Amino acid sequence: MALVHYPVINKNGSVIASAVTNLDLHDIARASKTFSAKAFYVVTPLDDQRALASRILRYWVKGAGAAYNPKRCEALDLTVVKPSLDAVVEDIRHACNAEPCLVATCARNGYRNLTFEGFRERLLKGHPHLLLFGTAWGLSDELLTGSDFVLDPIAGYSGYNHLSVRSAAAIVLDRLMGNREPSDRYSRSC
Amino acid sequence: MALVHYPVINKNGSVIASAVTNLDLHDIARASKTFSAKAFYVVTPLDDQRALASRILRYWVKGAGAAYNPKRCEALDLTVVKPSLDAVVEDIRHACNAEPCLVATCARNGYRNLTFEGFRERLLKGHPHLLLFGTAWGLSDELLTGSDFVLDPIAGYSGYNHLSVRSAAAIVLDRLMGNREPSDRYSRSC
Repeated sequence: MALVHYPVINKNGSVIASAVTNLDLHDIARASKTFSAKAFYVVTPLDDQRALASRILRYWVKGAGAAYNPKRCEALDLTVVKPSLDAVVEDIRHACNAEPCLVATCARNGYRNLTFEGFRERLLKGHPHLLLFGTAWGLSDELLTGSDFVLDPIAGYSGYNHLSVRSAAAIVLDRLMGNREPSDRYSRSC
Repeated sequence: MALVHYPVINKNGSVIASAVTNLDLHDIARASKTFSAKAFYVVTPLDDQRALASRILRYWVKGAGAAYNPKRCEALDLTVVKPSLDAVVEDIRHACNAEPCLVATCARNGYRNLTFEGFRERLLKGHPHLLLFGTAWGLSDELLTGSDFVLDPIAGYSGYNHLSVRSAAAIVLDRLMGNREPSDRYSRSC
């Protein structure tokens, strides 16, 4: 998993670097842990934003937060702060000894070329995949077209498609990894 | 949907009234809108917390926020602040001319008596249901045992079950209302 703060677009479609949001780190780390992502990368080229994210992580993983809430520590311990997607890819390449396949997400319809079912099948084969979520108004056009795949957008039960990135990440992980059948689910997890 | 701030438990299991979190309102309102919940109730008996929630809502629904981000306005416009669950039930009774069925959620296993599939079937019959999420460490034992149903907990793909309430609400709504089949999904929503 990676949460991308650059390159993303703002409401006018311009490419920007967005600010780190505290609850993004907590919520997406907790969802990553729940659904067994191997790591959660927070990507920003801005020095002060990387320092902020690192300070939050230190508090919960090594500081007073770890004693106060060990479960939060366990989730945030998955989180790695990186200056660029290239640095993330390099990290995965080193850990897995293989090139990760980049799967971008986008709420708009024009880019999709991978269904949830297709992604599940790919994951079962064991090759490393890097799932990308954009902050602000979403990943830049260049990043979407440069990724290996763009996952189907989440369609709800209305024409409204403005979920928060925290909600979208949780839903995508659940659709990919959540156990659908109670009997199967309980036997595996409880 | 209702996000309950009392009665919920703290990490020691004591019943408390929790504080309102700004992003809970945004994230759960956006998910409620995406998956066509009729209303999103924010329940707290604390006057200052109701005032805070109402102030946030006014900004996004009637204030400068509505012009800045009309999509956010559209979602938060579903939100209703109430002092108690009784007041929520009364509101639904009045709107629907029927008693809502209370469906509580809980990350722990001991209470469940309704599967996602069972809940979907009930929803299709058209009777009003009120889906309850707890803040802090979750809904109180009394509220869980006093509800008509307790939905299966979300099991992920690990033993870790500490999702944020924002993530849990998004996943539950998606499991209940999200369109599973791309062909079906696209024909309905796009």
